[in-house]
Amino acid sequence: MKEFKLDPRLERDCIILGELNNNLLLLMNNSLVPWFILVPKVLEIELIDLPDDKQVSVLQDINVISVFLRNNFDISKLNIAAIGNVVSQLHIHIVGRSPKDYCWPNVVWGVKEHQPYSEERVNKIVKQIGIELGDKISLFGISK
Amino acid sequence: MKEFKLDPRLERDCIILGELNNNLLLLMNNSLVPWFILVPKVLEIELIDLPDDKQVSVLQDINVISVFLRNNFDISKLNIAAIGNVVSQLHIHIVGRSPKDYCWPNVVWGVKEHQPYSEERVNKIVKQIGIELGDKISLFGISK
Repeated sequence: MKEFKLDPRLERDCIILGELNNNLLLLMNNSLVPWFILVPKVLEIELIDLPDDKQVSVLQDINVISVFLRNNFDISKLNIAAIGNVVSQLHIHIVGRSPKDYCWPNVVWGVKEHQPYSEERVNKIVKQIGIELGDKISLFGISK
Repeated sequence: MKEFKLDPRLERDCIILGELNNNLLLLMNNSLVPWFILVPKVLEIELIDLPDDKQVSVLQDINVISVFLRNNFDISKLNIAAIGNVVSQLHIHIVGRSPKDYCWPNVVWGVKEHQPYSEERVNKIVKQIGIELGDKISLFGISK
């Protein structure tokens, strides 16, 4: 039986932070905008192919991460999307946007410009996630 | 008290098809790709600000429209997104994508190219929605 394995492109482009309700939490390694990605540990490609309870658990995690974004970053809009045209593995983008950010009001997908995080900033985000999310998340520490 | 009113830009760009669980169903007037939009009849801007039961009802309608897309169009991927950087009124895009379509693998948002529907094609889609969705939807007929 095929097992879940994080897509190599997501692994390359993101920092793997931890795990919520059986959904991996990644941080896109682009400090120009706060951009999280949830990756349900499943083999299905589309959200709608998950059983209802699993869909609702993804929705709950979208809520948790969205609230974290609003509490900790200077953002005025959330962009939430499941696209998967390039990386088909099911993953949900949760991006905090602001009229001051690098590509507002355009969407972030397809924009080449990016600025990797410093280790210090990632550590700060990880620490804050730990404080706010508490038991809801298992943090892995910084994997790369 | 402020009442729900469909955003004028959505009204201009889309064909208003009907209403599911208190969510308006629009068809983006671009026949290059099958592109539906759900507009919950609420004043909140973000999905996560809706009460849980309302979020789940939106999720159910996303499922219904996604299945309709897969059953009736030659698509291989769903793109589902709540963005709202330009039109802030809460609305969820449900787009059927295919490697053969006009802007694959890029996202559809921000792409200027479009081709309005013929009345005949819209009528065909409306008829098919009526057959497949039955009681789940109140169809308005074509509003423009």
